[in-house]
Amino acid sequence: MLKTPDHQVAGHEAGLGKLGPLIDNSGRFYKPLQGSNRGSEEVAFYESFSSNVNIPDSIRKFFPVYYGTEIVKASTGSDHPHMVLQDLTSAHVNPSVMDIKIGSRTWGPKASEAYIAKCLKKDRESTSIPLGFRISGLQVYIDDDSGFYKPHRSYIRKTGPDDVRLLLRKFVSSNPSSAEMETGRGPDCSLASLVYGGPNGILAQLLELKAWFEDQTIYHFYACSFLFMFEKGLALKGAWSKTAVKLIDFAHVTDGNGVIDHNFLGGLSSLIKFISDILAETNDFSGTNGHVEL
Amino acid sequence: MLKTPDHQVAGHEAGLGKLGPLIDNSGRFYKPLQGSNRGSEEVAFYESFSSNVNIPDSIRKFFPVYYGTEIVKASTGSDHPHMVLQDLTSAHVNPSVMDIKIGSRTWGPKASEAYIAKCLKKDRESTSIPLGFRISGLQVYIDDDSGFYKPHRSYIRKTGPDDVRLLLRKFVSSNPSSAEMETGRGPDCSLASLVYGGPNGILAQLLELKAWFEDQTIYHFYACSFLFMFEKGLALKGAWSKTAVKLIDFAHVTDGNGVIDHNFLGGLSSLIKFISDILAETNDFSGTNGHVEL
Repeated sequence: MLKTPDHQVAGHEAGLGKLGPLIDNSGRFYKPLQGSNRGSEEVAFYESFSSNVNIPDSIRKFFPVYYGTEIVKASTGSDHPHMVLQDLTSAHVNPSVMDIKIGSRTWGPKASEAYIAKCLKKDRESTSIPLGFRISGLQVYIDDDSGFYKPHRSYIRKTGPDDVRLLLRKFVSSNPSSAEMETGRGPDCSLASLVYGGPNGILAQLLELKAWFEDQTIYHFYACSFLFMFEKGLALKGAWSKTAVKLIDFAHVTDGNGVIDHNFLGGLSSLIKFISDILAETNDFSGTNGHVEL
Repeated sequence: MLKTPDHQVAGHEAGLGKLGPLIDNSGRFYKPLQGSNRGSEEVAFYESFSSNVNIPDSIRKFFPVYYGTEIVKASTGSDHPHMVLQDLTSAHVNPSVMDIKIGSRTWGPKASEAYIAKCLKKDRESTSIPLGFRISGLQVYIDDDSGFYKPHRSYIRKTGPDDVRLLLRKFVSSNPSSAEMETGRGPDCSLASLVYGGPNGILAQLLELKAWFEDQTIYHFYACSFLFMFEKGLALKGAWSKTAVKLIDFAHVTDGNGVIDHNFLGGLSSLIKFISDILAETNDFSGTNGHVEL
């Protein structure tokens, strides 16, 4: 029996008469093939990537496992082809999740004029142009009583550079829903050094990917997203390996043709700087890395 | 007495009734202030940059020295305000010069709709979108008899990714004007390890700048160019320090507002990969770095 995912923070949602992703209870994620070639393009990417021997294992771990395609009963009630992927959140109980679309440009060189105009408008209205990335959605686990901090899509759509900085701080805070106006102080970033920092934290993983993007010329990843995920309880116990960085959404991947993906790399480098800034700032105050300012 | 520069490879050229740069015989370059605020914007950048104490000397060396503005008799015959800058080619006799405009996007976030449309068209028609940079002009010294290889602007305007790869090879070849069709082989890249490689070569200098761009959030350099310069005779004698990498054209620099210049960094990283590829390939054959393929 398939059901809708519990922890989706962005993208199409399955509903009455609406196609959206489904999951089973064995850790698989069913993504319906989208129209106008996007579905087949994404299948083509997964087929190519799965069989490409030039992808090091250290990089492959950032991508969901691909199990092929299957026709299943969709959320609309009728049979529809789906990609069968690893359900990234299946191992989690109360995952904090953030979806970040990378690149200041979300359209590839061969896109149609109409599609370019549509993307360019969104890229300019969001933070994609100024920051090289935009937040597409997030949820931050607080506790069993309060549940999750999960800002509405209408707010996410309007986020500017200052909101992005704030949301990246809230993502690693024990008080994500605290309004600065009321408390007199912002999110506490108490989990920053656990989640962003450390040898297996998000920053270390992003730097590993960055080194690959400085050299790889196989694929260009337009409109692709990072999924950051961690389990607050495990993070507090120091279970680092559960802090996950994954890449998703490959409907607009193109051949690299011997050129690096400078659009993705630029956005990734910008995101790295944002996260480094948060770490530097929280380390200054908490002194957790030994560099206490006296 | 001012005169037109001998080694200009791109940009407006001074002529009868046309404003363009001039030089004197004491090593100064006079750049006329352009209209529609560009001139004053570029002056504002040079004033800000010259007095900014947060720019390390290791980075300042990549920029022309700025001496202020001065009203001089322009190439049009009338008085006009000029920026007075260091003449970068004054120390050279027969410089090989290449001008490369960096960034897949040459317009800043606050540009007008009309200006964005104009730039986007050029960025898409050139290699800026696919490669993250485009070649704006070059001259390669051959010898006193043959003079320079200097492709016409009409060819430069039409260069695609393969032409760019070829021109980057020709720039460091003793036979830049050889047509592959006739000789059966391409440019020899005989100067690649001298000019691109080595501890003071172009690649090392670009990597130094890249490290700064991964961290600096002061300026965003839209539509800014690299000028690569070397003197063939000196390069052959091992006079490394004369291989120059300079940044020019700052009419579209904007405030970084705490964000890295991901557009410039992406293009710079792409250019670094192109140059690394040429070095790797020429080293494979010449064995100059000891890694001969057996």
